Amino acid sequence: MNDDARWLAAAASLAARARPLSRPNPAVGAIVVRDGKVVARGWTRPGGRPHAEAVALAAAGEAARGATLYVTLEPCAHRSERGPACADLVAASGLARVVVGCGDPDPRTAGSGIARIRAAGIALDLLASPQAEASLSGYLTQKRLGRPEVTLKLAMSLDGCIALANGESQWITGEAARAHVHAMRARADAILVGGATLRGDAPRLDVRLPGLQARAPERWVLTRGEAPTGWRALPSPEAIAGMAGVQYLFVEGGADAAAAFLRAGLVDRLLLYRAPILIGGGRPALADFGLAALARAHGQWRRDAQHPLGSDTLEVYTRIPCSPE
Amino acid sequence: MNDDARWLAAAASLAARARPLSRPNPAVGAIVVRDGKVVARGWTRPGGRPHAEAVALAAAGEAARGATLYVTLEPCAHRSERGPACADLVAASGLARVVVGCGDPDPRTAGSGIARIRAAGIALDLLASPQAEASLSGYLTQKRLGRPEVTLKLAMSLDGCIALANGESQWITGEAARAHVHAMRARADAILVGGATLRGDAPRLDVRLPGLQARAPERWVLTRGEAPTGWRALPSPEAIAGMAGVQYLFVEGGADAAAAFLRAGLVDRLLLYRAPILIGGGRPALADFGLAALARAHGQWRRDAQHPLGSDTLEVYTRIPCSPE
Repeated sequence: MNDDARWLAAAASLAARARPLSRPNPAVGAIVVRDGKVVARGWTRPGGRPHAEAVALAAAGEAARGATLYVTLEPCAHRSERGPACADLVAASGLARVVVGCGDPDPRTAGSGIARIRAAGIALDLLASPQAEASLSGYLTQKRLGRPEVTLKLAMSLDGCIALANGESQWITGEAARAHVHAMRARADAILVGGATLRGDAPRLDVRLPGLQARAPERWVLTRGEAPTGWRALPSPEAIAGMAGVQYLFVEGGADAAAAFLRAGLVDRLLLYRAPILIGGGRPALADFGLAALARAHGQWRRDAQHPLGSDTLEVYTRIPCSPE
Repeated sequence: MNDDARWLAAAASLAARARPLSRPNPAVGAIVVRDGKVVARGWTRPGGRPHAEAVALAAAGEAARGATLYVTLEPCAHRSERGPACADLVAASGLARVVVGCGDPDPRTAGSGIARIRAAGIALDLLASPQAEASLSGYLTQKRLGRPEVTLKLAMSLDGCIALANGESQWITGEAARAHVHAMRARADAILVGGATLRGDAPRLDVRLPGLQARAPERWVLTRGEAPTGWRALPSPEAIAGMAGVQYLFVEGGADAAAAFLRAGLVDRLLLYRAPILIGGGRPALADFGLAALARAHGQWRRDAQHPLGSDTLEVYTRIPCSPE
């Protein structure tokens, strides 16, 4: 990784601080660097304004002159009632150079942010930063596919069970894994469970972490019927296309809801929390999702990460694209 | 790890070459070291004789004088028609020092091998070497518990399935994982499957690895009925106590046989071969084995190792002893 890639990765780490509070705007990170040192930093503020570049440039002030701005997403080119276009701010900043980690697919920007900055005589490099892309995955999925990014969580035994046959499910995973789930909820815009899970387990799906209680996301239930108070009803997985402003959807099960999303091809990421226990003849993590032959199951998932969580293990899988993008 | 521990670990690696062909004797490794250099090596020969120490001392000849012998198991103290007692060979060897990785629970030796060597004026250290113990696990289990060490293999999808609902199971894991299973068979004295698996899949359970075809172990089927030609019948998991000469038993499933061994508390080690696929509503890896409550499932298994095998992953779990031994 060269210096530019490292600074973009650092900006992507900053962007994580904005997620999910920046909604409906993307969570962006920006760093102003001069002579190899950080002059100023910024990330999208809650509610989406000011943008990360505006925060970083305001913090840098005159120190921006001759410096380099690293920003995870192409600066916006559209003026809004809520603030000026970042491309204009950058153009007037006196910056010597801008490095962008990802182009903005929003048609109001889509290259015109970059063009406007270059037209102001500022050197600009657009690098494909995997960290910047990953930090914007929900935003990019909404813009490209018109739906949120979907993460499916399964917490299970080594033999793939989420409960004993009698329904006992507390607890399979330990405290560290359950706290991690709460942290993942806090980074989601919306959480969903199946109707049977809601009726059977009455899950709170809240965020029980000190300082993060207010981050509890929207709660959805997969049902063709009515949702109880405090919940919203999603009639089918495909209906996530109508989840306005939701970039990150966290599907927590049960087995039927998980299968419904897999059947629809609407799972982008798997979080497998695995406890070092055997259950045997318990309730399976996944119901039938219509897999017709084993050959079709292969080549779909790639393990991207693995972390110990107490005596449990978290594995993160992402869907392998059918063809190069 | 100090030098003694390292040499014992090296001797344990050598011992692996003797497994399982040394049966009915344990697979032992021995190294003669002088001035930090290997003078000679040995491991138990096929059929159990000569023993590892005899091989190493014969190879060392006069170079044994003043050297140190590292041996994974206490030298035997009993004469046999098939050869002299190793303790006598060692006592007459001119060695300056002997380091033993594990005492021999065989009542014919059980400390008297060590005593005889010390009585000859040779310094002897008995160190508890985890590697030496592990290399002798099947032998030690037979001597201590009167039964083979049992390894249960499960090859499954991420959601714990060993086949589709329609029975399709070829293939879940890839070539590298399947070759690894064959290597594990070649290290076992006996392999077992359940009756339903034998009738349904007609597995060959042979060793299809170049140069190792002749290593195919005894084939057993868990059934109260008759075994077909080429197979032996085991009426219950508890009947493994009668498997004479079998130190290592490899249980390959299916779900009912695996559950029967778990129910009987007769699984020492789990090999989980996991493919990065989801099946959903498939056949579970494990049938009900009588787990009454989740709390009892915890604290039973510890993950000791994990290896990538192509796109699959092998995880090795060992049973956590109920109380310190």
